[in-house]
Amino acid sequence: MNTGNFIYPIQEYIDRVEEVMRANTDGHHPEINAAIEHLLSSGGKRIRPAITLLTGKMLGGSIDKLIILSAAIELLHTATLVHDDLIDGALLRRGIATLNAQWSPAATVLTGDYIFARAATLAAETESAELIKIFSKTLATIANGEITQLFASRGIIDRNEYYQRIYAKTASLFELSAMAAAMLSTTDEEIILSFKRFGYDIGMAFQIVDDILDFTGEQITIGKPVASDLRQGIITLPAIYYFENSNDRTILEIFSNGNNPFEDQMENLIDSIRNSDAISLAFQEAKRFVVHGREIFANHSDSVEKTALENLTNYIVDRKF
Amino acid sequence: MNTGNFIYPIQEYIDRVEEVMRANTDGHHPEINAAIEHLLSSGGKRIRPAITLLTGKMLGGSIDKLIILSAAIELLHTATLVHDDLIDGALLRRGIATLNAQWSPAATVLTGDYIFARAATLAAETESAELIKIFSKTLATIANGEITQLFASRGIIDRNEYYQRIYAKTASLFELSAMAAAMLSTTDEEIILSFKRFGYDIGMAFQIVDDILDFTGEQITIGKPVASDLRQGIITLPAIYYFENSNDRTILEIFSNGNNPFEDQMENLIDSIRNSDAISLAFQEAKRFVVHGREIFANHSDSVEKTALENLTNYIVDRKF
Repeated sequence: MNTGNFIYPIQEYIDRVEEVMRANTDGHHPEINAAIEHLLSSGGKRIRPAITLLTGKMLGGSIDKLIILSAAIELLHTATLVHDDLIDGALLRRGIATLNAQWSPAATVLTGDYIFARAATLAAETESAELIKIFSKTLATIANGEITQLFASRGIIDRNEYYQRIYAKTASLFELSAMAAAMLSTTDEEIILSFKRFGYDIGMAFQIVDDILDFTGEQITIGKPVASDLRQGIITLPAIYYFENSNDRTILEIFSNGNNPFEDQMENLIDSIRNSDAISLAFQEAKRFVVHGREIFANHSDSVEKTALENLTNYIVDRKF
Repeated sequence: MNTGNFIYPIQEYIDRVEEVMRANTDGHHPEINAAIEHLLSSGGKRIRPAITLLTGKMLGGSIDKLIILSAAIELLHTATLVHDDLIDGALLRRGIATLNAQWSPAATVLTGDYIFARAATLAAETESAELIKIFSKTLATIANGEITQLFASRGIIDRNEYYQRIYAKTASLFELSAMAAAMLSTTDEEIILSFKRFGYDIGMAFQIVDDILDFTGEQITIGKPVASDLRQGIITLPAIYYFENSNDRTILEIFSNGNNPFEDQMENLIDSIRNSDAISLAFQEAKRFVVHGREIFANHSDSVEKTALENLTNYIVDRKF
């Protein structure tokens, strides 16, 4: 399963989205161009623009507005990554040097701010005040989620908190990608809300699969230590299932005193989770989200976009690093 | 001259602006409340909301929308200050501890982002896509200006570069405050553009006076070393006038080799500028901006708001730290 089988109907539009993201129409500083060029070159799968373009096109929306919206959302995503990498001190993302690996913190903060501004300007070019409200609220949700995580205690096992966290971190932007595309394409409230739910479902699935891959991947391919979240005291779905279905209380022990766990205790725990049925249980949950998401447009008439969206939902659960 | 003689017709609205800025309607993390509360307690003169409220009210705009707009602009201003203080490593602003003096860089970056998002959401509540575009572009202008300054050489004496810099840093937001208020209050393009110019004029004057006070103030009252900009190689209007009207080439010498100047050489230069007519020349320039700005609404019929706006323009050139 690769991205080709959902990108093909929209490849030319994806190219135009990247052109809009690159556009230097406001005479900004050349260093910002260099930064944006660098960020775009690291690519990513453009899954959010694909959701927006396929949803909007399936619903008969104006492709020009959908391209602007896609660029706005992808720039919003890019800006949050720039600030995240700075905060985490990450030096690589998808194998490419992060901005903060090359630039001062000051330049990195400001470039993120500038990209936020560009994103908001593009969102405003859709001429829909309702859409811009949802766009801004999504940024608030993402920032609030990050702040909540920053102040959260380590090692807390709480399903509800997990869902809230991955909603803020990932699903909120998928939700925006699908819902805003529907808003530009129809006035039917029911359709708009159903695509909001669609974006939510596949966004939740996307993050759950990311969290599974964090356990099942190999350090060399995921580019960071296996189970890096758990090592930082962030409890994701595989660890939650493992805790619920075993008598192993190591997680509680490890984080109860707020100290760093012994390395061998942590390695044993990670091995136990990797080899338990927690992985397949988490995976089944991701699949349930995807199946539910797919049902939402099952009754739409057949189209190349509908098939591509189905392929996209399959990609979300089938992808590997 | 104090703020009372332009705040009095709008005091109750200013209070409502602060309520909107504080409002926690989206269930965000309690630490964000604490941060916003702290930022609001440091007060400031609320000069931007005053411009928006007086302009809009003079032009017959809806007070509810003007209050939302004022809160949006003041939150935008607050967010840029949060990131600026982080970048500068500033520990105090207006005598109150900055956010980054108390919080980690991560929490400070994210709180700034969250406040940007709140600002944009409020701007969207004005329901004017045109206004939101200008709002977002102003943030882009501010961030671009900061980035430009970050990458600029030290000690460059360039009038044009100075005007661009203070436009990006200060006048762009004053321009937004007046122009957006006019946009909410009239559809007359000519009036909107004239108030854009009004905001520009008084914003330029405001920053020039700030730059004068940086030379003429005492360290104890301005809360930082006298001529702190010059010490960092940032050349403001008093230094430009001094350079243009004297044979003293110390500025060029000091920064020509990129090294830090000798302390006594710098102190002598600062003393020379303080005691030269560069100060009054810069001051006359600020006054010219203010006089030009005031002419813009001179033909409006008399009203309490018009008088207050006149007082506000006087305050800008008469204020002291």
